[in-house]
Amino acid sequence: MFKVNDNYQKLPGSYLFSTIAKKVNAYSAANPQKSIIRLGIGDVTQPIAPSIIAAMHSAVDEMGNAATFHGYAPDLGYEFLRSAIAKNDYVARGCDISADEIFVSDGAKSDSGNIQEIFSVDNKIAVCDPVYPVYVDSNVMAGRTGTYDPKTEMWSDVIYMPCTMENNFVPEFPKETPDIIYLCLPNNPTGTTITKSQLQEWVDYANKNGAVIIYDAAYEAYISEDDVAHSIYECEGAKTCAIELRSFSKNAGFTGVRLGFTVVPKELKCGDVSLHAMWARRHGTKFNGAPYIVQRAGEAVYSDAGKAELKQQVAYYMNNAKTIKEGLKDAGYTVFGGVNAPYIWLKTPEQMTSWEFFDYLLENANVVGTPGSGFGPSGEGYFRLTAFGSYENTVTALERIKKL
Amino acid sequence: MFKVNDNYQKLPGSYLFSTIAKKVNAYSAANPQKSIIRLGIGDVTQPIAPSIIAAMHSAVDEMGNAATFHGYAPDLGYEFLRSAIAKNDYVARGCDISADEIFVSDGAKSDSGNIQEIFSVDNKIAVCDPVYPVYVDSNVMAGRTGTYDPKTEMWSDVIYMPCTMENNFVPEFPKETPDIIYLCLPNNPTGTTITKSQLQEWVDYANKNGAVIIYDAAYEAYISEDDVAHSIYECEGAKTCAIELRSFSKNAGFTGVRLGFTVVPKELKCGDVSLHAMWARRHGTKFNGAPYIVQRAGEAVYSDAGKAELKQQVAYYMNNAKTIKEGLKDAGYTVFGGVNAPYIWLKTPEQMTSWEFFDYLLENANVVGTPGSGFGPSGEGYFRLTAFGSYENTVTALERIKKL
Repeated sequence: MFKVNDNYQKLPGSYLFSTIAKKVNAYSAANPQKSIIRLGIGDVTQPIAPSIIAAMHSAVDEMGNAATFHGYAPDLGYEFLRSAIAKNDYVARGCDISADEIFVSDGAKSDSGNIQEIFSVDNKIAVCDPVYPVYVDSNVMAGRTGTYDPKTEMWSDVIYMPCTMENNFVPEFPKETPDIIYLCLPNNPTGTTITKSQLQEWVDYANKNGAVIIYDAAYEAYISEDDVAHSIYECEGAKTCAIELRSFSKNAGFTGVRLGFTVVPKELKCGDVSLHAMWARRHGTKFNGAPYIVQRAGEAVYSDAGKAELKQQVAYYMNNAKTIKEGLKDAGYTVFGGVNAPYIWLKTPEQMTSWEFFDYLLENANVVGTPGSGFGPSGEGYFRLTAFGSYENTVTALERIKKL
Repeated sequence: MFKVNDNYQKLPGSYLFSTIAKKVNAYSAANPQKSIIRLGIGDVTQPIAPSIIAAMHSAVDEMGNAATFHGYAPDLGYEFLRSAIAKNDYVARGCDISADEIFVSDGAKSDSGNIQEIFSVDNKIAVCDPVYPVYVDSNVMAGRTGTYDPKTEMWSDVIYMPCTMENNFVPEFPKETPDIIYLCLPNNPTGTTITKSQLQEWVDYANKNGAVIIYDAAYEAYISEDDVAHSIYECEGAKTCAIELRSFSKNAGFTGVRLGFTVVPKELKCGDVSLHAMWARRHGTKFNGAPYIVQRAGEAVYSDAGKAELKQQVAYYMNNAKTIKEGLKDAGYTVFGGVNAPYIWLKTPEQMTSWEFFDYLLENANVVGTPGSGFGPSGEGYFRLTAFGSYENTVTALERIKKL
């Protein structure tokens, strides 16, 4: 008699954004006349940039012609894309990462969820709290997290690193040494980040303690301050302790196009075992490449025209971030983030819980945000708004919030 | 100190098609004047059909316009595609499968590799021998297969069901009862299949023994005989014991476009636990949808124009299959398959091993095929040729083989 993976049954409730969607749909059904503004899920709203659209049309045409048709892609991704990534995202920033250390994928969410597979189930993970739910949930599914305590909303075998206004949202080295450390910087959900020298301390810590850092740099395009690293490989020694995850969703609006990549340096080893070889084996066995059309779209991101268009797109969203941050401040809220990331993290007023504030905002301002507690226990009492809406909606949302 | 997933280290050598690619590249580098014809890997060569190209251009345009832009897709896939699948692939064949039992993915290879995650690591798998390597390798990575014996090329905890000319390539019920049974029909690599009544016996066996069938129907578009099922759900009782994997790679040439789907019926349960809910949770946690453009391409597969164009494309490849099969017969080979599948499975001549014949064919006819032993020990002494080349190349390859 077949049995299921019991770890799945340990997962509490459903995925955060599914719960939000259900609540919003229920409110919307009951109040069809209300115009709801969604600043909750981190989905973009600006269309794909013209030079990327042109590249996709061209690639579609290639697929319709026998002479230029492309079937199965190379396991790691097309050379043209990997070279563009290596050159623009790494070599240009002084990072010694080569094209064959880059693995193109269908997005950073897949990579975030799958990367834990190459590690032992005995390894202990450390996560910032609050945190992007996929890191923890994918480790729960693998049986790496122990038991769940519904009271504390914490797993017995996960090391939590609280990031709150008290420590300025900078994770501290945990008392117990972790094997795998997840860092997302600039951070989702808090919108805050740390300096390059603070990141260097984490790299040194990992190398000293034999830990590996899973570094999620999905929001690097939004960095505006000089002393913030765009890649962990800007830090000395990162190639022997860090895997970096990157997305095209936020810098180029590819949430519905689907493209990402993971960097696994060849120097990253566990004894004699190369993690690069392991990830290559996983990629080759359980994945069959991102679409040719999408990889050409990714290449266009690095063209001169693409870069110029996307700089404007990022500026558009960061202007929204400024609008939200200043509007909330004017309304008397305590706010964080929004300088190096497209997220605003606010302290809920009058000691409301995160979900109380969610309901309050939905019902009274018809604005959807994300409850901080959905990202972990230390997110309780906080709330996330994203800058990914349209400017018009962002302005309207803030007008409504100010009137509350 | 972090540790790796030791199961990866148990995997022998590299992925079959990587080994072939290396051998071909080495021969080609040493003999640059030779024109090599590749009938090895199951990659298609015909361009994407015109109506699908038109649908992709239209979807690309939508992505370039704020009013029609699409961000994150629904977890299960877009309703327009899931409805088209349910209607055309299931309801039209009398199968009671609804749109919300269909999970759209980036391809059947990903689903083939990932589906084992929702089962217990204690479960025992049964596979046909020879078999598509991903089924076994993904279970090795999960630690479900015991130890590998390099002499027999078999895993201690895998149940092998030999499919050879002796049993007419029809798998027999194993002596030991498996928990999970992988069936790929029409079969890769043998190109053979079984009748609907033989498949019904497997469904009855699984229901009786509490086993689950992972049914890979990637080649269903090539079925030409009436008594062969296009879906396992044509068999009575399949909804309580079977998961079906489908691909757009072979029926629509999407090897480089990337689209597939998995059917998990709501009635499929382990005690009270719904496998549909588990797969939905995996999809929601570790995957973020297939690209909008690609899902629109999938929808076009089911349009009247798409169906007509793809019928021609399948006929084109099946004419190649006939060319290969008859050519080999004329040359004195013993051949199988090629009637309900685009693969020809031949007995190697003069008791050559599969790899000996691979080298012989590469060096003397400059034709690349796939050694049967690469698919499992019972594939030794067999060899696979695919019908996915161009007609001209197929004819030339057969002329060369006939001259040997």
